[in-house]
Amino acid sequence: MNGTRNAVTVRVPGSTSNCGAGFDTLGLALTVYNRITLTRAQVADRNPQPETENDRCAQALVDETAAAFFRESAHEQVGFRFHVSGDVPVARGLGSSATIITGVLAGLDALCGTGYSRQELAAMGTALEGNPDNVSPSLLGGFTVSRCDPATGAYVNTIRVRVPLELVFVVVSPAMELVTKESRGALPKQLPYADAVRSVNSAAYLTAAFASGEFEKLRHAVADFMHEPYRLPKIPGAGPAIRAGVAAGALTGWLSGSGSSVLCVATQATAEGVGGAMSEAFGRANMASVVRLLRADNEGLVVE
Amino acid sequence: MNGTRNAVTVRVPGSTSNCGAGFDTLGLALTVYNRITLTRAQVADRNPQPETENDRCAQALVDETAAAFFRESAHEQVGFRFHVSGDVPVARGLGSSATIITGVLAGLDALCGTGYSRQELAAMGTALEGNPDNVSPSLLGGFTVSRCDPATGAYVNTIRVRVPLELVFVVVSPAMELVTKESRGALPKQLPYADAVRSVNSAAYLTAAFASGEFEKLRHAVADFMHEPYRLPKIPGAGPAIRAGVAAGALTGWLSGSGSSVLCVATQATAEGVGGAMSEAFGRANMASVVRLLRADNEGLVVE
Repeated sequence: MNGTRNAVTVRVPGSTSNCGAGFDTLGLALTVYNRITLTRAQVADRNPQPETENDRCAQALVDETAAAFFRESAHEQVGFRFHVSGDVPVARGLGSSATIITGVLAGLDALCGTGYSRQELAAMGTALEGNPDNVSPSLLGGFTVSRCDPATGAYVNTIRVRVPLELVFVVVSPAMELVTKESRGALPKQLPYADAVRSVNSAAYLTAAFASGEFEKLRHAVADFMHEPYRLPKIPGAGPAIRAGVAAGALTGWLSGSGSSVLCVATQATAEGVGGAMSEAFGRANMASVVRLLRADNEGLVVE
Repeated sequence: MNGTRNAVTVRVPGSTSNCGAGFDTLGLALTVYNRITLTRAQVADRNPQPETENDRCAQALVDETAAAFFRESAHEQVGFRFHVSGDVPVARGLGSSATIITGVLAGLDALCGTGYSRQELAAMGTALEGNPDNVSPSLLGGFTVSRCDPATGAYVNTIRVRVPLELVFVVVSPAMELVTKESRGALPKQLPYADAVRSVNSAAYLTAAFASGEFEKLRHAVADFMHEPYRLPKIPGAGPAIRAGVAAGALTGWLSGSGSSVLCVATQATAEGVGGAMSEAFGRANMASVVRLLRADNEGLVVE
């Protein structure tokens, strides 16, 4: 990735995060992608007219990310136009902002020939996003366990494991946007001690199930007491949708990120039934929804 | 293990638990053992005179465990004498009570020919011990991630991974006993939200490091905010001992169980220096201590 280029397109997977109780820690890249194209331009000539609605939404985030890149790298500022396309829905808990942040960072790295490692990009992306739980899977693919410095919150490192394609991730997105920063306001300042213990138990066991490949054990892995009890009630149909998916044969399910999507882990044999049951549960709450049957992405970000 | 026997000896490894933030969840079996021998006798003839100090200490726990075994199994009550020997110190955070509980359960299973699985014995042992974090490694060996039902606390299952013998677990036990049940009284009823988040992050990352075999990443894995901040200050020298071990080259360290022992994870090359540094730190707090250089036990309980 050394040397400079005039244009670059970066394909970035969306991701689910938290995965139950793995708050700000666990993530999993999914086969739903955004493409971010950067083209060299005059510094003053940044997308004077956004080409698309996607681009208009992304403009502020692209600008902030580019500013951070040039500040961190001390590389001479390079002007560029950008274009975002793809299928990662906005504000649905599938890490769309992380796809843009990591796509712009990796794209500028390619345009400028700065040669950053994935871990270095993850550190920059985490600083911008506020946590690593979508940034890491978007960059690295697979199931990711990201470590932050307990004192400063700064990104430290990620342990990544491959996820086999037998697992189907049934993602159901209701017609309701949720902005993570606002959704954090619903969380309490103190937690009952027993809820913290139960959440640690869930997060460690889910991590062990993915890392050891004992996926049958996912059946008993998830139950969160840190954020889902505060967030699920604000999304009509979301709690019932997870329960309906599990009743229809899913191994387990969780609120994706801070929502609004919910996700169940199924197999090829059960995935369609699980998706139907989840969608019906949203329907009973008068909430339209979109069902996506996805697999894990084990590649992560690709500079095309 | 079907059929009945007149006498049985069970070798059971001690274990470290919690492993930082993996409260009531994580455990690791160590190469320090107790042997529990059971010999058939008249029902009324249970150890009328305890043979040794070890046996006298264990009497109540053996009786409670046997009562639970016969209640659970609905097997006709069998009288037996017992004898406990071995090197697992009492009330030092190395799971000595779990060695006796699991040893008696497995011993009675052999005497009575009830043919329980390890998972069934783990469920019985967890009910007696109150949590699975020492019971599971004593039964299964290796690094264990045990799941409890979030609603009832009942044992569900364990994911177990082998730990290579390159890792040396430097256990330093100060001359101070700690009874877990009392030590729980030091824990708060509520936890700051950020402390729960940091603990989840630590527990999941440590789990991923052991399960993936990326042991170098243990360097950044541990920092607990759930129990160590409340317990370490009550054990003079314990906090400084962990820091001294890490400064001397250990990958990481933690309070073993609820103490009083502390443990650092080292390699063959660093283990002796780490143990010396830890012991010196206790010495500066006027606390005598015993250093043990142990490995992981990957076998678990053995009916001899």
